Amino acid sequence: MRPIDALVNSLPEARVVTDPDVIDSYARDRTFVAPGKPLGVVLAASRDDVVTTLKWATEHRVPVVPRGAGTGLAGAAVAGDGVIVLSLARMTAIKELSPADEIAVVEPGVITADLDRAAREHGLMYAPDPSSYEISTIGGNLATNAGGLRCVKYGVTRDSTLGLEVVLADGRILNTGRRTMKGVTGYDLTGLFVGSEGTLGVITSATVRLRRAPAVPPATFAAEFGSPRDAGAAVSAIMAAGCQPSLMELLDRTTLKAIDDWRNIGLEDATQAMLIGQSDAADGQAMAERMQRICLDNGASFVAVSSTPEEAEELIGVRRLAYGAKERMGACLVEDVCVPRSKLAEMIIAIEEAAARHGVLIATAAHAGDGNLHPVFIFDHGTLEPPAEVWAAADEVFTTALRLGGTLTGEHGVGLLKRRWLAMEAGPVAAEVQNGIKAVFDPLGILNPGKAI
Amino acid sequence: MRPIDALVNSLPEARVVTDPDVIDSYARDRTFVAPGKPLGVVLAASRDDVVTTLKWATEHRVPVVPRGAGTGLAGAAVAGDGVIVLSLARMTAIKELSPADEIAVVEPGVITADLDRAAREHGLMYAPDPSSYEISTIGGNLATNAGGLRCVKYGVTRDSTLGLEVVLADGRILNTGRRTMKGVTGYDLTGLFVGSEGTLGVITSATVRLRRAPAVPPATFAAEFGSPRDAGAAVSAIMAAGCQPSLMELLDRTTLKAIDDWRNIGLEDATQAMLIGQSDAADGQAMAERMQRICLDNGASFVAVSSTPEEAEELIGVRRLAYGAKERMGACLVEDVCVPRSKLAEMIIAIEEAAARHGVLIATAAHAGDGNLHPVFIFDHGTLEPPAEVWAAADEVFTTALRLGGTLTGEHGVGLLKRRWLAMEAGPVAAEVQNGIKAVFDPLGILNPGKAI
Repeated sequence: MRPIDALVNSLPEARVVTDPDVIDSYARDRTFVAPGKPLGVVLAASRDDVVTTLKWATEHRVPVVPRGAGTGLAGAAVAGDGVIVLSLARMTAIKELSPADEIAVVEPGVITADLDRAAREHGLMYAPDPSSYEISTIGGNLATNAGGLRCVKYGVTRDSTLGLEVVLADGRILNTGRRTMKGVTGYDLTGLFVGSEGTLGVITSATVRLRRAPAVPPATFAAEFGSPRDAGAAVSAIMAAGCQPSLMELLDRTTLKAIDDWRNIGLEDATQAMLIGQSDAADGQAMAERMQRICLDNGASFVAVSSTPEEAEELIGVRRLAYGAKERMGACLVEDVCVPRSKLAEMIIAIEEAAARHGVLIATAAHAGDGNLHPVFIFDHGTLEPPAEVWAAADEVFTTALRLGGTLTGEHGVGLLKRRWLAMEAGPVAAEVQNGIKAVFDPLGILNPGKAI
Repeated sequence: MRPIDALVNSLPEARVVTDPDVIDSYARDRTFVAPGKPLGVVLAASRDDVVTTLKWATEHRVPVVPRGAGTGLAGAAVAGDGVIVLSLARMTAIKELSPADEIAVVEPGVITADLDRAAREHGLMYAPDPSSYEISTIGGNLATNAGGLRCVKYGVTRDSTLGLEVVLADGRILNTGRRTMKGVTGYDLTGLFVGSEGTLGVITSATVRLRRAPAVPPATFAAEFGSPRDAGAAVSAIMAAGCQPSLMELLDRTTLKAIDDWRNIGLEDATQAMLIGQSDAADGQAMAERMQRICLDNGASFVAVSSTPEEAEELIGVRRLAYGAKERMGACLVEDVCVPRSKLAEMIIAIEEAAARHGVLIATAAHAGDGNLHPVFIFDHGTLEPPAEVWAAADEVFTTALRLGGTLTGEHGVGLLKRRWLAMEAGPVAAEVQNGIKAVFDPLGILNPGKAI
């Protein structure tokens, strides 16, 4: 009997996929990274299925690549040769939603936006909102410590995670954290699992924190600037004024041009950057107008402020077009550097210079309030891998981000794509202790090998 | 040459204290736990001193007990026989304070309130405010993941920590985290160190997040209730209404009586619980009045609202008297359970029942918005250790907290005092992986042995 047959026999019926074409669709994420040929895919429907799979994997020394919806942008869920893909996408139960305690207990396959909608029925929300939140899963968000647009006000996935149930590599079950808002019993294992890209264990349940949903629809502004430097100064001034935007996005000229070419937004020649911000506070309209004034004081040529929810949606709609506009132009390598907020403009200018120097098209959108930039390197659709000049430009962007006191990845994760730069940021001592921690949880190295650290 | 002489010789002059009386004052925290007889105390003035001390400790296999100001309430800094106490209290530099990036880089000996004051010169604040913040150090706050009054709105120490410099047991230097608001490079080592009570390494520098200081002084209310259940219901209603209090404290009858006996606050016979809350929002006065109405709707017999900053201070002053009033009555075992907010009243009632059943005086103050209760077990000043009935009552309180979905310690830590209950909460798998992590960082087990896990 082949090892895979033992797995099929030990799981309930129809849990294991072995059709190569179907397997292939479970072996990719949203990067260009080509997968290998996995042995099969387990479509786990319960914690027991996960335990069975991991015990089998430990017995047969088969690597396991856990995955949610495969919306990752760093290759963390790309599966190689001879592995088992462990999909958690069918574990979609919201097991508990307590308005009184403002928490929910969910399975990892719950779609992020579904949890948010369930919470809103009780006047609550689930704050983390990665751009993919209509298709991404909570489990994937946890694995990558996903950010999003709202995290400028509400923090990242880690900030909404209270406790986890995890199946370890050998099938043991570990409970971390708690249901309470505070707690300091033992080491912070919850934080250790969030962002660990499935390399330490497989999350089968999460206790997450909900927050009060804003009472009124958000008010939005969109400001046009003649230079990234002015836009960056406006961001700093808005944050320094304590405006607490619930969203604060910046689009560079290349991104705006791509959107204009596609949907004709009436882009002015002089507009080099656009800032789109929201306030979801009770006095949101006044706050949006205050941010408008700050933008004008910092050199904005024009600032629109919404006066209805529809207008607010229209202004934010430009931001939503950004990625689609870039995908039209070619294959995309989406990067994710994060710098101290005061270095935002400097980083944008450095990206523009790297693009010019290497003859590469780079279009940047940024979660500006967090200093988190997504320079998208656009290359020929026909190319399987980014060409050398893209990597050369990316290398320059990463080096600059680190020089400015920043980090390689603000919210997408390391996955496969960023591992070659990791040592530059973390250094050898961090690498050693991270490998040590990995060995505590996964001594055989079967959990998503070659990712995250 | 004795090992301690080698240490004295390898450090700059006057760094090592060997006078037994002075040593003793560095071997205690604020608990009743009796220390042993340490070999000496290193008064580190620099990272180099810490490196030298830990290299020496590794070479000679001498346990090291790191400490800040010794304001801990769980015995985490209590030093045993034959150890070296490593005091970080002299490393008091605020190395950087960047208003633009809203961060500070500080040495571990900085007094918490000093950092807050330094931030306020720039319109910022350092949010975590343990009750001891005028004498506690940032390093101690990090080691215990300290909470405080403001954390109902701003989170605990972990939520204000971006990155750390840590000296490992063998003297290697590890940098964790970053200067940016977001980042997911590798495992969350920063979170792992916060709350680890000096058992994984010695923090020599921290990059912390600052926040905008409120623009106006906070408005305060104080509400009197005929039962803890009504007070608990008011807390839930205030949080559910989205009032976002910046402070929300509950005092039980025993605490109020102790304060009244000391300072005569005119306590009514019918008052069984008092709720004291603040709002530091721009519309704080209106919000305090809204919370007043909610309290009245939930059965409060009387609710005062401040109309000046002086009145606000006066109302909150009652809360500040709580611990002093209890210390007058006897020796104190300060406990720290945390429950889901909806279980607050049930927990208070269970504490009252445990007190009655075991004939023990327990006075409870709670960070009510977080569900974090501090039942203080008061016993005879002449007794060195809490008597058996105190432990029996404490055991009942812990068991109830866990049954209600809570935790043994919300913000004080495990230290020495809570270790015997740890397994009840964390379970054997968590204990195993925590011991595994400990061994990665401290294979010889010389860092604060017998604490935290």
